[in-house]
Amino acid sequence: MTNFISLADVADIDALIQSGRDAKANPFADQHLGHNKTIGLIFFNSSLRTRLSTQKAAQNLGLNVMVMNVGQDSWGLEMEDGTIMNGDKAEHVKEAAAVMGRYCNILGIRAFAGLQDRDKDYSEQVMNQFKKYAAVPIINLESATRHPLQSLADCITIEEFKPVPRPKVVLTWLPHFKPLPQAVANSFCEWMNQRDVDFVVTHPEGYDLAPEFVGNARVTHNQDEAFDGADFIYGKNWSSYIRYGKVLTQDSSWMVTGEKMKLTNNGKFMHCLPVRRNVKVSDEVLDSPQSIVIEQAANREWSAQAVLKAILNNL
Amino acid sequence: MTNFISLADVADIDALIQSGRDAKANPFADQHLGHNKTIGLIFFNSSLRTRLSTQKAAQNLGLNVMVMNVGQDSWGLEMEDGTIMNGDKAEHVKEAAAVMGRYCNILGIRAFAGLQDRDKDYSEQVMNQFKKYAAVPIINLESATRHPLQSLADCITIEEFKPVPRPKVVLTWLPHFKPLPQAVANSFCEWMNQRDVDFVVTHPEGYDLAPEFVGNARVTHNQDEAFDGADFIYGKNWSSYIRYGKVLTQDSSWMVTGEKMKLTNNGKFMHCLPVRRNVKVSDEVLDSPQSIVIEQAANREWSAQAVLKAILNNL
Amino acid sequence: MTNFISLADVADIDALIQSGRDAKANPFADQHLGHNKTIGLIFFNSSLRTRLSTQKAAQNLGLNVMVMNVGQDSWGLEMEDGTIMNGDKAEHVKEAAAVMGRYCNILGIRAFAGLQDRDKDYSEQVMNQFKKYAAVPIINLESATRHPLQSLADCITIEEFKPVPRPKVVLTWLPHFKPLPQAVANSFCEWMNQRDVDFVVTHPEGYDLAPEFVGNARVTHNQDEAFDGADFIYGKNWSSYIRYGKVLTQDSSWMVTGEKMKLTNNGKFMHCLPVRRNVKVSDEVLDSPQSIVIEQAANREWSAQAVLKAILNNL
Repeated sequence: MTNFISLADVADIDALIQSGRDAKANPFADQHLGHNKTIGLIFFNSSLRTRLSTQKAAQNLGLNVMVMNVGQDSWGLEMEDGTIMNGDKAEHVKEAAAVMGRYCNILGIRAFAGLQDRDKDYSEQVMNQFKKYAAVPIINLESATRHPLQSLADCITIEEFKPVPRPKVVLTWLPHFKPLPQAVANSFCEWMNQRDVDFVVTHPEGYDLAPEFVGNARVTHNQDEAFDGADFIYGKNWSSYIRYGKVLTQDSSWMVTGEKMKLTNNGKFMHCLPVRRNVKVSDEVLDSPQSIVIEQAANREWSAQAVLKAILNNL
Repeated sequence: MTNFISLADVADIDALIQSGRDAKANPFADQHLGHNKTIGLIFFNSSLRTRLSTQKAAQNLGLNVMVMNVGQDSWGLEMEDGTIMNGDKAEHVKEAAAVMGRYCNILGIRAFAGLQDRDKDYSEQVMNQFKKYAAVPIINLESATRHPLQSLADCITIEEFKPVPRPKVVLTWLPHFKPLPQAVANSFCEWMNQRDVDFVVTHPEGYDLAPEFVGNARVTHNQDEAFDGADFIYGKNWSSYIRYGKVLTQDSSWMVTGEKMKLTNNGKFMHCLPVRRNVKVSDEVLDSPQSIVIEQAANREWSAQAVLKAILNNL
Repeated sequence: MTNFISLADVADIDALIQSGRDAKANPFADQHLGHNKTIGLIFFNSSLRTRLSTQKAAQNLGLNVMVMNVGQDSWGLEMEDGTIMNGDKAEHVKEAAAVMGRYCNILGIRAFAGLQDRDKDYSEQVMNQFKKYAAVPIINLESATRHPLQSLADCITIEEFKPVPRPKVVLTWLPHFKPLPQAVANSFCEWMNQRDVDFVVTHPEGYDLAPEFVGNARVTHNQDEAFDGADFIYGKNWSSYIRYGKVLTQDSSWMVTGEKMKLTNNGKFMHCLPVRRNVKVSDEVLDSPQSIVIEQAANREWSAQAVLKAILNNL
């Protein structure tokens, strides 16, 4: 694998999922692969799971890890080409990416959507600038429109827990008072559309995801109907794509509760975390055996390890 | 050892002190113990000595280390159960602790007292929530009411410097303009009460420590009397426990000076650091051979190593 | 080498440059040198290249690395002796440096000029206090008046790219709207004055560097004249030394452009980075083959490795 920015970088999803499951079974089998190699993890935004799981996976593979918070450990980076840099950004990504690429064999980059300018966010400027200038493999640690390490962990989790060969998987919008990016939902759609699952997306009106992500998935505004017979409920809030970055409703009837989970086929509840309890989903659900959010988060280590191994094998 | 949250987790203090002294004599003897194991150091508050000494001790034992500043590298964590999470905390400790416990074999947690609500602070909510949900050993890197890695380093230091088998050890309150936690003083009492020392606590009226910590220690409001013939002066400021979190006095006559040290039996001056010079203790004392604060701080590495070794031996 | 605070600590510049070039050719040849040794990298200011390149070089040599941002990971440090510490600094450098020196075999320190008090900045208080109290070798990661790791990387770069045995090297002031330290420019002068180069410094009136740094270098206020026939253009902004810390002009005619580079002998453009594009130097220059800023930044790894090796050999 050359980069891991989106699903388009993955030649064989099944093999990558299996590689993650192999890493879980035997974490240190490939420890020689990273010897005397270094990954830089560059965060433009906060992180808990991605920060720790990617570091851990890298160490399992024998890689050295350097972590940097942009704008905190260092200064802000200018992403626009041709600009006169007389503002608050002290360095251009052309230099920063190229230099980091000289110190690191692989770079992981986290840069969330700004949610102000849809075209800019959906152009994936930060990922693309790093890809263009770093001259080393780039791993997406959550970008403006995608979170593929999460999606790969989700696939691994569904493989582990699916009760039937072709499970019904439901992505449901959850209420939240703050505008959040569409990245996790987009990415989940992108990956599920390539999996052998019965995939349904449900959300209130006005929360349609971008067509290139939702693809041919079945979409309904009726959450109950979507939940009916589901094997997996994947909860996530996102702000509107159509009225970009806006919170159109906080309708609490969309919160996942024990009552709603009864509509499912003893379905498992998934969420990428962090999750606001009793806003997006009730304690009752998260504290029940139906919730697999911790196992799902634990699989972030193995999705990162599968990706790192594929990239190291190609260095 | 299963956890190291308070002295109650220690089966044999003498053995633990000896283990620290052994590590000091031979730092890398147990380097195999941590191989392919990872400790996460999670800071809700600033740290210098604890941050560096625990990292160093972990590396001496061959452990991988991941450091995270909560609310800076990541977001704030909700500690209350059953709450509707519509405030500024994006993740519940139930998830965060469980997830960190999947990526790490051991977790070290620093979370100071808030000094607003005594019952809450003294319930040790953060430590107990991590202990409940992380499913891996928890090390206290200073909690609301205790700092046991400091106390163990203090015990090692007293062993090294005691001029007689049963030294006189005095914990004295020092003046300070900011309200500070009682954790270090509490913990020092807790440990000294289990040691073969003549232990005296001295502080102005209103600064009594919690009864469960001060135990049977002799307490006096007369600092000069306390200092008389002392082998060790252990200085520390703390805010009032009775009028919780309040600064009742900044009486500078409680500052430790060369004059006061003359009352002692050529006593050694100890302080956990950081210390404000010429507010809590004079330059004259800190710059004299009687001050052993640097050796005491250096022993933080060996106290952490003793604790980590005991936990690794039990994994 | 005992310390690396300024050029005065270097016995043989040629040997140090050669050591850096050897490290570049064979990065892992000395990996045993750092085994079971630890470097602490202490940042009072932001950093990108220095942070990552020094970490990387240390890892190449098998060192453990601990990174700490003062005032962010920990609290502020008092540098003045004899003060009553009732302000915002919670710890004195006497204690902090001594303690860090107990946990680390080598300390790297970054502390920029405050640009308020010239005498204070030029006394190099922070470096000198750490040197005085840490009791381990100190590496300057950019101090108030010098950036010798940068200068060494610059020397390596000039060796690699010089078209003639004795190249013409021009240090030119560049326009900028913020007051920046003189450290990089000072240091570059200090090192160039010891090299076999034709060294010219050019800047607007009022921007004279301190005499002890500029030495016998030729100085001109005519940038075009300076550029004439130059093999290397080394760009840098600095604030005034005479009217200390002031921005006297932002005259954009001093920006390096393609037109100006035509005056040179097909000269190479160098800059320590970060650089503000189209403020200090045009895109046209930075994106041309004449720019060697990325190779120069890449050499930071090898300058750090040469210095670390020399210090480790002396431990």
